[in-house]
Amino acid sequence: MDCIFCKIIKGEVPCSKVYEDDDVLAFLDISPNNKGHTLVIPKQHHETILDIPDELLKKVIMLVKKVSIVLKKDSDGINILQNNYKPGGQLVPHIHFHIIPRFENDNHKFEWSHIKYEDGEVEQYRQKIENLLK
Amino acid sequence: MDCIFCKIIKGEVPCSKVYEDDDVLAFLDISPNNKGHTLVIPKQHHETILDIPDELLKKVIMLVKKVSIVLKKDSDGINILQNNYKPGGQLVPHIHFHIIPRFENDNHKFEWSHIKYEDGEVEQYRQKIENLLK
Repeated sequence: MDCIFCKIIKGEVPCSKVYEDDDVLAFLDISPNNKGHTLVIPKQHHETILDIPDELLKKVIMLVKKVSIVLKKDSDGINILQNNYKPGGQLVPHIHFHIIPRFENDNHKFEWSHIKYEDGEVEQYRQKIENLLK
Repeated sequence: MDCIFCKIIKGEVPCSKVYEDDDVLAFLDISPNNKGHTLVIPKQHHETILDIPDELLKKVIMLVKKVSIVLKKDSDGINILQNNYKPGGQLVPHIHFHIIPRFENDNHKFEWSHIKYEDGEVEQYRQKIENLLK
C-alpha cells in the first residue's frame, strides 16, 4: 500500500518517533504549527475516524491524552485536530490526530467564518441528526 | 458551578440536543462553522482532555465517531477539533469536541503558519517528549 504513514510504521521512511507500542505510534510532525507538534496514529491502516475500529480508536485517544499532558508542560494550551477526507483537509489518508502545543500570543487563531441557520432550520437539522443517531 | 455546559446538562439552559445518555451529551453548536456543526461533551464537569478520566474520554470519543458517521452522510469531510485552555482557543472550560461537517469549496482552510526547527532542535524535542512519555 502506498501510504506514507504505513511506510513510517514499517521503518521504510524515517520519523522523529516519541512513542510506540503494539498498536499506536507518535512522532513529530515534520511541518509543525508550533515546536513539539506531534501526530498520533494507529499502526493498522484505517483511513478516517469513521472506519477505525472502536477498540483501536480508544487506544489512539488514550495516547492523544498522554501526549497532550506532556506537551502542556512546556506550553500554555493544546489543540487537538483530526481531519477526515480531502474536503476536510486530510492530506494523508491514514487516520491521524494532531496535538499542537499553543503559546500565549502565538498568533494562531481558529478564524473560520460562522454561518447562521435560516428560520426553523436548526430544528430540522437537530431532528435529522437525532434520528440518525438512534 | 457557573459553567454554561453544566447548565445545559441540567436543563437550566436550552440546547438543540441530538443525543444523550447517562454519560455524554451531543448538541448543535449555536454559532456553527457549517450547518450541522455538533458539540460532544461529557456530563461530568472536567475542564480539558488532560484531566478527564480515561473511561469517560473513551465514551466521549465513541460518540464523536458516531456523530462523524452521521454528519458525513450529508457532507464531504469532517473536522474534529478539541481546544484546551484559553491560549488554545477554549472558550467554555468544560471539555468539548467540535464535529464540523465540511463541503467541497466551503472556503474553510486550516491556514496556521508553519515553523521550522533550528539545526538539531527536532532531536532535542523528540528526546524530551519521548522521555516524558516513558
